[in-house]
Amino acid sequence: MSDLASQLIALLGADAVSTTTDDLAVHSTDKWFASSPPEVVAFPGSTEQVSKLLKFAHENKIPITARGAGVGYVGGCVPLRGGIAMSLMRMNRIKEINTADGVAVVEPGVITGVLQSEVRKLGWFYPPDPASLKECSLGGNIAANAGGPRCVKYGVTRHYVLGLEAVLADGTIVKAGGRCHKNKQGFDLVGLFVGSEGMLGVVTEATLRLLPHPPTRAMVSAGFKTFAEAAAAVQRVFGSGFLPSGLEIADKFTLRAAREYLGESVTPTGDAHLLVEIDGHEESVALELKKLEALVHDCGSISLEAAMGEEACERFWKLRREFSYSLRNTGLIKLNEDIVVPRSRLVELVDFTEQLQTECGFPIASFGHAGDGNIHVNIMVPNMTDPEIKERAEVALDRLFHQIIAWNGAITGEHGIGIAKQRWFADAVGEGAVTLHRRLKAALDPNGVLNPGKFLG
Amino acid sequence: MSDLASQLIALLGADAVSTTTDDLAVHSTDKWFASSPPEVVAFPGSTEQVSKLLKFAHENKIPITARGAGVGYVGGCVPLRGGIAMSLMRMNRIKEINTADGVAVVEPGVITGVLQSEVRKLGWFYPPDPASLKECSLGGNIAANAGGPRCVKYGVTRHYVLGLEAVLADGTIVKAGGRCHKNKQGFDLVGLFVGSEGMLGVVTEATLRLLPHPPTRAMVSAGFKTFAEAAAAVQRVFGSGFLPSGLEIADKFTLRAAREYLGESVTPTGDAHLLVEIDGHEESVALELKKLEALVHDCGSISLEAAMGEEACERFWKLRREFSYSLRNTGLIKLNEDIVVPRSRLVELVDFTEQLQTECGFPIASFGHAGDGNIHVNIMVPNMTDPEIKERAEVALDRLFHQIIAWNGAITGEHGIGIAKQRWFADAVGEGAVTLHRRLKAALDPNGVLNPGKFLG
Repeated sequence: MSDLASQLIALLGADAVSTTTDDLAVHSTDKWFASSPPEVVAFPGSTEQVSKLLKFAHENKIPITARGAGVGYVGGCVPLRGGIAMSLMRMNRIKEINTADGVAVVEPGVITGVLQSEVRKLGWFYPPDPASLKECSLGGNIAANAGGPRCVKYGVTRHYVLGLEAVLADGTIVKAGGRCHKNKQGFDLVGLFVGSEGMLGVVTEATLRLLPHPPTRAMVSAGFKTFAEAAAAVQRVFGSGFLPSGLEIADKFTLRAAREYLGESVTPTGDAHLLVEIDGHEESVALELKKLEALVHDCGSISLEAAMGEEACERFWKLRREFSYSLRNTGLIKLNEDIVVPRSRLVELVDFTEQLQTECGFPIASFGHAGDGNIHVNIMVPNMTDPEIKERAEVALDRLFHQIIAWNGAITGEHGIGIAKQRWFADAVGEGAVTLHRRLKAALDPNGVLNPGKFLG
Repeated sequence: MSDLASQLIALLGADAVSTTTDDLAVHSTDKWFASSPPEVVAFPGSTEQVSKLLKFAHENKIPITARGAGVGYVGGCVPLRGGIAMSLMRMNRIKEINTADGVAVVEPGVITGVLQSEVRKLGWFYPPDPASLKECSLGGNIAANAGGPRCVKYGVTRHYVLGLEAVLADGTIVKAGGRCHKNKQGFDLVGLFVGSEGMLGVVTEATLRLLPHPPTRAMVSAGFKTFAEAAAAVQRVFGSGFLPSGLEIADKFTLRAAREYLGESVTPTGDAHLLVEIDGHEESVALELKKLEALVHDCGSISLEAAMGEEACERFWKLRREFSYSLRNTGLIKLNEDIVVPRSRLVELVDFTEQLQTECGFPIASFGHAGDGNIHVNIMVPNMTDPEIKERAEVALDRLFHQIIAWNGAITGEHGIGIAKQRWFADAVGEGAVTLHRRLKAALDPNGVLNPGKFLG
């Protein structure tokens, strides 16, 4: 038992502290490659315990890295400098769902999908829908400002956090925002914590905005000869007064992998695939679906299927989710980069990745949230252990990110910077923004104990 | 000519500096009571000039207060400590409207309504709609995180700022966010500036998110016997899967004033009035309007009118806007407090204001954005110059705000803290949040030159 573990036991009690090999291993990684073990894992069960832990870490200058379910894609919660890994997963109560106020009050360890289904039972809706929603936590969603396919209509996690309780590095407990759907009381402290990747404070409670659940939804699934035609259809959909609740695109490399994995018969024909979802009242959606079908057909689709209602739509979404598994099925490792381009650049992006593929010798598959311009570009590498391959992969990533930056894009739309993208962070945000990041970090965490070693050093 | 004026002329040129009595007077106030003249008014024409000015003010510790069109309601841009009033109104170019990317790039001095109509011509939509949209500036909207009736569906200004260029107190130019509809590159620097009331930096350019314009809209205008019934209808509307693009309520004191000003015939009957707006595709809206009428009727409305299409809806909105003029027509001064309550408290709020009215002896009229719980509570006073009346008004405000705070409400939903609400700021946000506000202020404006004398001192 290390000194640190003994001190934490004295602080929180024995059941809130672990140094077992298993716990250290589980809390060393997320879904990315990096791994670095903490010295101790702490499982606080209350805001007071979080506050005590942070105060202790701050005063003793011990690195402390908060984490939720650990399903991030950029190594964001990996405790790079060791010290304490603080899991928020024991704080997993839904404290309240109040439809009259249109809010839910939750602890950070609640699984996103669990909240969604609880709220759904009451006819209400928590829109943010990251792909990992069955296993990710709301605290993690808040730290990453998680998105998902529905963001194009409904916005990202930030748009649903009305209030939160957060603990600063020195143990100060702060209430930000509140329970109201509008609030102009001072600076946007909520926004300061949402997306801060555990580097400015630790969220211990969140008050989330709920919407009435749209009574139904419908979808169009269409194959196109070329990606350019599918991208043109995206523009036409917006240009016709539609604000879809989902607007997804996939390129030929993705479709090729899907054909191999799922078979020709269930995979859409053509070199590009478009999914459009709309939602609302039943009769409205039925009418709009007809319009949408005609519109997409008019855009030159070579195959077209429509789905009306929750269940039928789920089948299309299942296909969409299979794209990811199809790529994994190639036996290659996906370097999944969630880049964003201004919407008009979708075609240029896919032309660029095609060229990059030739240059770097790795297959590249692109698919994702066309409505936001947020595309998952997957560079498919045989492994990341062979130094020559790793070197070539890094060159490919470099080329990709520099092009994205040159287009005024963003090198991450959903996953965050973490470790995975820190090399490109300064170039992506510019000198002034880096300075401002450092000033904020110094003001809130002067001893630099919160999640150290990440993109601010 | 003061020394300060000469120094600024040397810095920016004579045409960007004024000390005329007129300019000093105009830049002493906004739409609230407070007035305090600056020593000099500066009219920078570029980001570089703003940067020069701020660097100069920072180095010489001279108060500098940025302002847009000066139509705020809380004294937010009143230069309380004199020094420099910096008008951004010469920076009024719409630099770009790009529907393919769904963005507009603007300077801060652009009038909100001008952007809206330019965008509308292309079939696109910039939703935030503060009542003053014909005269307020986008820079002011950003400083205040402005709202409006449409926020219930579309969100506030923050939700439409994708990127901005801001100048820090020391002249550092920062680019925050960008041109993409999703962006997870580091902390939410955009949110740090939106709603910061000119105390953390000065915005010199904004990239705003545009949506496809909904093809049409429709409304229901209904009278109810009691406010409680109208408030219950609000809950029923949400509970039936509607997400209205407007949901406004008015109480009997407002309606009484409207009857006196406009006449009985055009004012809805009953002691409460409800407006519900929906938008979308034409056939959908027509169908949903029928549903909505049936629903509102079923909630016990005693009068009910429907409107289909832009023009017909405008008539209802015109009536809604007349409420404010009707109150002014009483000859009394409106102390317009834009408080917010959790939506379930609407009835309690109006019961409370009725009681408060009896206690303080001033009429109180409440109306506003029921969907958000954001109600404009207007305490109607004969004047604010008679010390006895002023004292009684302050007591009434005290009672109101303390009740709002006790309900976990917000003392301002749209207008901000400014000078008007600084007395209640600390109680409203709590000790931890005040500490954090001060830390942020010290980190970004260590010499305290940006808009000094406001709620952070």
